[in-house]
Amino acid sequence: MTFITISEVGPRDGLQSIKPVMPLEAKKAWIAAEAACGVPEIEVGSFVPPSLLPQMADTAELVRFARGIEGLNVVALVPNAKGAARAVEAGVHGFSAPFSMSETHSIRNVRKDHTQMIEEIRAMGRIAAEAGAHFAVGLSTAFGCTIEGAVPQATVVRMAAASIEAGAKELSLSDTTGYADPAQVRRLVRAVRAQVGDALTTLHLHNTRGLGLANALAGLDEGITTLDASLGGLGGCPYAPGASGNLVTEDLVLMLNAMGYKTGIDLEKLLKVRAILAEALPDEPLYGFTPDAGVMMDYQERIAQ
Amino acid sequence: MTFITISEVGPRDGLQSIKPVMPLEAKKAWIAAEAACGVPEIEVGSFVPPSLLPQMADTAELVRFARGIEGLNVVALVPNAKGAARAVEAGVHGFSAPFSMSETHSIRNVRKDHTQMIEEIRAMGRIAAEAGAHFAVGLSTAFGCTIEGAVPQATVVRMAAASIEAGAKELSLSDTTGYADPAQVRRLVRAVRAQVGDALTTLHLHNTRGLGLANALAGLDEGITTLDASLGGLGGCPYAPGASGNLVTEDLVLMLNAMGYKTGIDLEKLLKVRAILAEALPDEPLYGFTPDAGVMMDYQERIAQ
Repeated sequence: MTFITISEVGPRDGLQSIKPVMPLEAKKAWIAAEAACGVPEIEVGSFVPPSLLPQMADTAELVRFARGIEGLNVVALVPNAKGAARAVEAGVHGFSAPFSMSETHSIRNVRKDHTQMIEEIRAMGRIAAEAGAHFAVGLSTAFGCTIEGAVPQATVVRMAAASIEAGAKELSLSDTTGYADPAQVRRLVRAVRAQVGDALTTLHLHNTRGLGLANALAGLDEGITTLDASLGGLGGCPYAPGASGNLVTEDLVLMLNAMGYKTGIDLEKLLKVRAILAEALPDEPLYGFTPDAGVMMDYQERIAQ
Repeated sequence: MTFITISEVGPRDGLQSIKPVMPLEAKKAWIAAEAACGVPEIEVGSFVPPSLLPQMADTAELVRFARGIEGLNVVALVPNAKGAARAVEAGVHGFSAPFSMSETHSIRNVRKDHTQMIEEIRAMGRIAAEAGAHFAVGLSTAFGCTIEGAVPQATVVRMAAASIEAGAKELSLSDTTGYADPAQVRRLVRAVRAQVGDALTTLHLHNTRGLGLANALAGLDEGITTLDASLGGLGGCPYAPGASGNLVTEDLVLMLNAMGYKTGIDLEKLLKVRAILAEALPDEPLYGFTPDAGVMMDYQERIAQ
């Protein structure tokens, strides 16, 4: 039975995409409740300047809180070496840095071209190594970019190799724009793994065009072992073109558990955690189908097999 | 390039699941508009007693209308030999009959056990053969039943073989209850095809738990060549537990076209057909992500490959 790691990124990717700021106590309750369902890893926030993202201002405090939860892998997102230093100071188990495969997007977004980003990754790698923290690079816009359009597969493969050479211990492919289709997922995962092997573990998918779980399935077929997801698909808004929610954790757990993958997550318990989001963010839509439909009648038989 | 047939079942499965009756003229406009996008097959209605389903009372008239559209394969659902006679009289190219793999469900729903259903299929097969119409059997509740729970795979395989022996020319597996997971789809498609070969062409999936497109992908991997879908996922209501929409045609077409399958369907044109539904059924929710997000920037490049 293959173990698939579900990494809950809602407290970071979900919350940073919405206007309201979730109160610290609600974030703690959410993180604690998901961990109690068996979610093995939570990205609790990001170390960006609070002036840019006030939603993430309490990330250091959340890291300290989450480190008190036994068995939970506590990770955060960092945009650069400065953020990496703050992350290890707060005590993360690991951190990940986004690296945009669309150079135009990278320059516009963080004012660094690919060469400069590789040097930043090298600096972050040193910080991680000194602190004994795990360091992952997320190859963002890997499936296409809203500015450049198609991103050449060869670029992604080359930047994946360069990231590893610069000190990344693990890679993820991010469908930042919701452009991925299952055939492309298979091709790209295969090509990157041919270059860097098992260092590519993760897919970070958005459900912008409804293809999220199909893309996840395609990734699993190619050896992906970690999937990012967000409870209630928080942060996505299908009515605002271009906005895009993550995979919905609840539906992903249903799919994996029913298929016989081991996630360690108690789905029926997880479905109740949505109430924390609904209460703390009453105006935010929550997505997912399983929360409304419930598990199938023979769910317990399926997961017992 | 593999051709995948998308069979639009909204005018039947979508409309029969909602309360309002769509006016005949709107139905005609919908069917004509989808056919004009290249949709190759439409299930225009079902030949059930109008007293049971007033939404389907105009099916014969729709068959005659749709037969006037060049290149369109016009099919209808029939519950029994009486319906089959009406279908061929109206002039369908083909008809399909649902056959519930859960015997309890079959008895409660159509008051026939499996043996009686096989005899009904034999009678329908004769009617089809005499009229030169195509005859398909849809193995419903094939992935589980809300009354019985799990449905044994061996039952489905046995009933598939019995249906073919009784005169069915083609089979579909229907996830009536939205219970299917991708691993189960692979197992069941493989097992049934091992028994009846290419006669199993079709999956009829519901998106009840959000797994619809992932299940479709799993089916394609096992040789499925026809997928049923409903424009706007019409008929599904995620807020009514147990209710369940079909695959959303728009998202399915995006996935298949982007992957490099040939569907013959012009997606950008198809997205505009939703307006017919929105206008004729203003109180019915329409589903799907692609209609809100639009196609990806490099969509034309993808489908050109």
